[in-house]
Formats: sequence, C-alpha cells, structure tokens
Amino acid sequence: MTAERLEDVRVLAFDVFGTVVDWCSSIAQEIEQLNPEIDGRTFARAWRAGYQPAMQRVRAGELPWTLIDDLHRMILDDILMEFGMSELDESQKRHLNQAWHRLQAWPDSAQGIARLKARYITTTLSNGNINLLVNMAKAAGLNWDCVLSAEVFHAYKPDPATYLGVARIFDVRPDQVMLVAAHQDDLDAARQCGLLTAYIERPTEFGADMPKDVSPHPANTLHASSITALADTLLT
Amino acid sequence: MTAERLEDVRVLAFDVFGTVVDWCSSIAQEIEQLNPEIDGRTFARAWRAGYQPAMQRVRAGELPWTLIDDLHRMILDDILMEFGMSELDESQKRHLNQAWHRLQAWPDSAQGIARLKARYITTTLSNGNINLLVNMAKAAGLNWDCVLSAEVFHAYKPDPATYLGVARIFDVRPDQVMLVAAHQDDLDAARQCGLLTAYIERPTEFGADMPKDVSPHPANTLHASSITALADTLLT
Repeated sequence: MTAERLEDVRVLAFDVFGTVVDWCSSIAQEIEQLNPEIDGRTFARAWRAGYQPAMQRVRAGELPWTLIDDLHRMILDDILMEFGMSELDESQKRHLNQAWHRLQAWPDSAQGIARLKARYITTTLSNGNINLLVNMAKAAGLNWDCVLSAEVFHAYKPDPATYLGVARIFDVRPDQVMLVAAHQDDLDAARQCGLLTAYIERPTEFGADMPKDVSPHPANTLHASSITALADTLLT
Repeated sequence: MTAERLEDVRVLAFDVFGTVVDWCSSIAQEIEQLNPEIDGRTFARAWRAGYQPAMQRVRAGELPWTLIDDLHRMILDDILMEFGMSELDESQKRHLNQAWHRLQAWPDSAQGIARLKARYITTTLSNGNINLLVNMAKAAGLNWDCVLSAEVFHAYKPDPATYLGVARIFDVRPDQVMLVAAHQDDLDAARQCGLLTAYIERPTEFGADMPKDVSPHPANTLHASSITALADTLLT
C-alpha cells in the first residue's frame, strides 16, 4: 500500500452493526430490563445469529426482498419462544424489535466519524434499512454525510452490487472508496471489488464474555484499534 | 389544519434547488467569472429551463434513466453554443457542470435545518443525484439526517413514487411527512399523495431582476418566509 493510493481515497463507507455500534451490550440491556432472569448477551447473540440465515432465505428466493427490520422481527418471534418470553404483547414486541434503532455507539464512533467527515465523504454501508440507520444516527449523535443501505441497492452485503454501488453513486473508482469494518468477511468481499479496507478492532463485539480475535490481516490496507485511531492515521 | 395533525409529523422532506440553495446567483457568479461579458443570470435561467424538458425525455422513454448530473451536462452543451462559449475545453465543461454541486445555500437554510433536525427527521427529496446533494451539503454546511433523491426511487418528482417513497422508507403514514418547497407544483403533487406541505418564499429564486410571486396558497399546511421562520412555527 503506497501513500499515493491512500491519498486518492474520497469516500469512507462504514459497516455499522459491530463496527460503529455495540449491538450485543445494547440488546442485552433491553432484554434484561424486560426480564432480569434472562442472560441478555446470550439472547442478543441468538438474535444476531439468526441474521445471516434470514438473509440467505432472501438470496435463495425463498423470501422476497425484505428489510432488516422485518428479518429482525421474524427472528425475534422465534427466539422469544426459545427464551420463554412469548408472553410479550404486540406493542412490546414492536418496541423490542426497534432496539436495533437504539443501539449505542462505541465510545469513539461519533468523534471519529466527525473528524473523518472533515476530509472524506462518510457514508454508512449497512444491511440495516434506512429508517433504522437514521433513527440510530439521531440517537447516537452520528453525523453521516449519507446513509447508504442494502435497501438502496436491493442487495445485501457481501453482494458486489453494494460495494461497487458506493463507487458508482459517488462517481469515483472502487479504489477511491475504503470500507471500514470490524469483520474480515465484509472487508474481503470489498477488497475483491477493488475497494481499500480498514479493519477496526472490536474485541467485545459479541460481549466481554466471548472475546473476538482481532489480530491484523495483512490484506487490509489499514488496521486500527478504533475509529478515532483510524482518524489519527488518515488525517496526519 | 389542526394542531393534532401537525403534531403527528415525523419527517420533513426538503426540495433543494431554489428552496434550500440559490441556484440562480450561484450559477450566475461562476458564468461571469468565466466570461464577464455574459449575463450570468440569463445563462443560469436558460440552464435551469432545460431541466424539465430533459426529465420529460426520460419519462417519455426517449432516454434511459439518467442522473441529473448527466441531464445538466446535455443541457449545458447546448447552451454553451447558444451563448458562444463552446470554446471551453472538456475539463472546464466538467468543472462548470459541477457548479450544481457548489450551489450556495440561502442565508437561513443551514441554521433552519439544524434547528428542525432536533425534532424531525430531515431529509432531502430532490431530483438531484446523491453525489450532487452530498457534495452540496458538505460545501454549504447542511446537516441532513438522510439524503433521498430521485436516484433512490428511479423516478423524478412529481412522480408519486417519490413522495410516497419517503413515507415508506421511514415507515410512517404520508400525512406524517411534510414536503418543504418553494414551488407550488411540487407541493400540489405531494398534497395529492397525502403529505402535508410547507411553502417557503424565495422571491429572488430566478434572480433579483425577475421577482417571483410568493403569495400564499390556502391549500398549503404552512407558509413561511424562510426555513428559520418555518422552524419558529414548528418548534413553538
């Protein structure tokens, strides 16, 4: 990676769940407020674990195009049964499903994004739907230049249409876009489309009781301990 | 209009060209810098006048789906000839076409939108493409919650798909969305889709030498002299 290529970057596209916001702790808190006898992190992980299989049902054509809000709700209805919580009424279930709109940001996210926004176009590139991402940004004080979503592309990451769609929308080459994410599979798919990649360490993404391997992968353009650390590197 | 209905509004969708930014003066300045012998406002009005017919060619199927950046360029190539400016080289033409990304906001826009953002979801709803709207927002200090564009809906205003698309994306009823615009035809189309409407007076939209009728239409929910005046009304 040469300095010249990094200097060509115009757009930073951020993965959101896990990278910008702490879904595990946020969901766990809401669950434990509803029912203190349930381990909130186990519930949160079960909910999140249903997400890839649910998207796969859409990709396979078993379901039509579906917003993440609606996939979250389908998964929720299943796991509320598993956890013995299906006595919640419809308004409680709707409110709980919206917990994904209320996810708390990691402590460095808002400041890091604000700093990076001064030099780059900062956009989400998330499988979350636009309404979810906008409500989250308002609650967590995230000031994006643009909210891009699977909803815009009618394709979920890691479909190339999402990564290449960012370059197309902003009228730049793929290597002028950098994906910022805490997940190697997302970064791998972006790299295959020609994007630059920045890995963000989120060792407690799945909870402090289930630490995640955050060791560097040499294929990534950059590796940073946080979004503010990424800003330190990019804005020098 | 009852207070109850206004209190249900969740989303303010802003028309941009003319409502938030002063296209006529901004384009005129750039033209006069290039060629002081040309009347910049006349050039700006000619460029803008080509915009509806160009969209009509897309609607009629004569052109495929086309971004406004590309429609602006087609019109520009014609009027540069009319104004005897076709000696500009390709990089000058490209730069001039991007003048629409550099339009200056009316003096009240940034502050008014920032104040309204504290209570409402504030989004663009413009025929401008996303890249244009994002570059403009960065340059003019407009902090939108979301950038929605004809590009997202693959339909230009006044197609109902655009107005109803805002309600669909934010999962609200059409009457929980208010279109904010300086153009009665845009507001009329939004109202037919069930949106509330706020008219903003921009008497010099077409230049100080060509004042525009900004008298109130009773069909609009609100009528305001500026976006800050709209904020004064909505945030009381």
